[in-house]
Amino acid sequence: MPFHSKQRMNTELDAFFDRVRPAIETTLGALLPPETSTPRRIHQAMRYSTLDGGKRIRPCLCVAGFTAYQKEWRLVLPVAAAIEMVHSYSLIHDDLPAMDDDDFRRGKYSCHKQFSEALAILAGDGLLTLAFEVLARSTDFPPERVLRVITVIGQSAGTSNGMIAGQVLDLEGENTEVTANQLEAIHRSKTGALIGAAVWVGAYLGGASVSDLSSIQIYCDRIGLAFQVVDDILDATDGHNRDEGKATYPGLFGLDKSRVIAHDLMTEAREALAPLGKRGDLLSAFCDYLETRTN
Amino acid sequence: MPFHSKQRMNTELDAFFDRVRPAIETTLGALLPPETSTPRRIHQAMRYSTLDGGKRIRPCLCVAGFTAYQKEWRLVLPVAAAIEMVHSYSLIHDDLPAMDDDDFRRGKYSCHKQFSEALAILAGDGLLTLAFEVLARSTDFPPERVLRVITVIGQSAGTSNGMIAGQVLDLEGENTEVTANQLEAIHRSKTGALIGAAVWVGAYLGGASVSDLSSIQIYCDRIGLAFQVVDDILDATDGHNRDEGKATYPGLFGLDKSRVIAHDLMTEAREALAPLGKRGDLLSAFCDYLETRTN
Repeated sequence: MPFHSKQRMNTELDAFFDRVRPAIETTLGALLPPETSTPRRIHQAMRYSTLDGGKRIRPCLCVAGFTAYQKEWRLVLPVAAAIEMVHSYSLIHDDLPAMDDDDFRRGKYSCHKQFSEALAILAGDGLLTLAFEVLARSTDFPPERVLRVITVIGQSAGTSNGMIAGQVLDLEGENTEVTANQLEAIHRSKTGALIGAAVWVGAYLGGASVSDLSSIQIYCDRIGLAFQVVDDILDATDGHNRDEGKATYPGLFGLDKSRVIAHDLMTEAREALAPLGKRGDLLSAFCDYLETRTN
Repeated sequence: MPFHSKQRMNTELDAFFDRVRPAIETTLGALLPPETSTPRRIHQAMRYSTLDGGKRIRPCLCVAGFTAYQKEWRLVLPVAAAIEMVHSYSLIHDDLPAMDDDDFRRGKYSCHKQFSEALAILAGDGLLTLAFEVLARSTDFPPERVLRVITVIGQSAGTSNGMIAGQVLDLEGENTEVTANQLEAIHRSKTGALIGAAVWVGAYLGGASVSDLSSIQIYCDRIGLAFQVVDDILDATDGHNRDEGKATYPGLFGLDKSRVIAHDLMTEAREALAPLGKRGDLLSAFCDYLETRTN
């Protein structure tokens, strides 16, 4: 892509973020039970951990997939918000002492430090439950499509090839030798699956054709893995080392080779979008953004 | 109800249990990922905690609600099994050290003792996720009905008036003075909501009329609360005292009054079924069973 074109795309993506992120915050705020509703503490914990100014990459990708086919992007906001709730629950549970034992998350106390371990477990459970309830209440899409969406999100968060599988493999791999293939499997399931599902679900609800959906499937696969490789690179270079003892791409391949891997995956992702023509522009811009992000 | 009639009903209920319980075990066994599928440990943990010969009261109630309207009771088995998965996840998380800290469950080690705390958290998460995925895959019922079922089960398990709300209120109430009203609210949300949802969902999918559903709603409300009152009574009389420090009906009212409360609730539940005529017989028999059960 020539430089001027990339510039233009990034400006478009910036405009997209400026428009969509506040809408996601508003939607999350409206869907989460108010802090004043009983039992207050758990609703405070759920809001504390969800409404904390994250980058909202998953819901933004969901909206981007949708806008490739539909103008009325606000229709998909509850679905995008539900996906963010699933992400948010996973962070709360990952941070628990029995898991990654992190006291901080995004510059503030993690949920169990701010509230209690019991409340953090329950707040995570509550977010996961609410996510499915929100999805099931979607009345803007045909019911059979919503059921498919729930299935896909369930799988991407699940124990077979989804997020929970990735977390188990990640914990099992701590302080042991992990092969490149194993690490790829961990990253694909732990992070890639939900990232990919976010895009796929957006495009699917937007009405993408079966042929477009299979192109998007490849895109999802590549950016999902690349996202976590970039995360590893950022962790290795920011000096925080929050994942001590865990296998990472820089740990296995070194920083330079990891950057090449991430770049190659993003290139494959962009190429997979070729059959979509102009429709793929925004999703393509996400590749640059995700590759070059600095946090 | 004259004695000979009650006898007859219990025989019918026994026959129902003999037929339905094995089918529920088989369905759960088929829906849970096999122990040999990667990552094995979490699938072992999920099966360990779910396939452990529980009484299957919730799925049995779901099937009973369904059979009031439909002969082909096997159709509702996946939905009944999903409800049991939600129950099973809640037991795993409740037993965690940060929660009720129970080392044993149904005569064997609780999940976190047998596996690890991390795996117990993730196994619970996995069961909850799988439950919604199983529901979303139901193709034997109209999609809009399945979405309603997911919503109702989500609410009954949720943080506002559902199971998680009850667990939060329960933990907050530990070692403090709890009023009768508060205790009723805890029991209704912690146990009553999912018990009630099981029956309601079965009847709804069976095709109960709106009028019958509102009768069943009252039945659900009464047996849901009564179930936990009976649980309290059993806990107080079996000498185990697993809920030390927690408010219970016998603690607040004494054993005799608690038995009267449970009996009165069951009577109200049975009376609510009157408009259903013969259709209500099996659900009515559940009242006797739930009131007089000894474990």
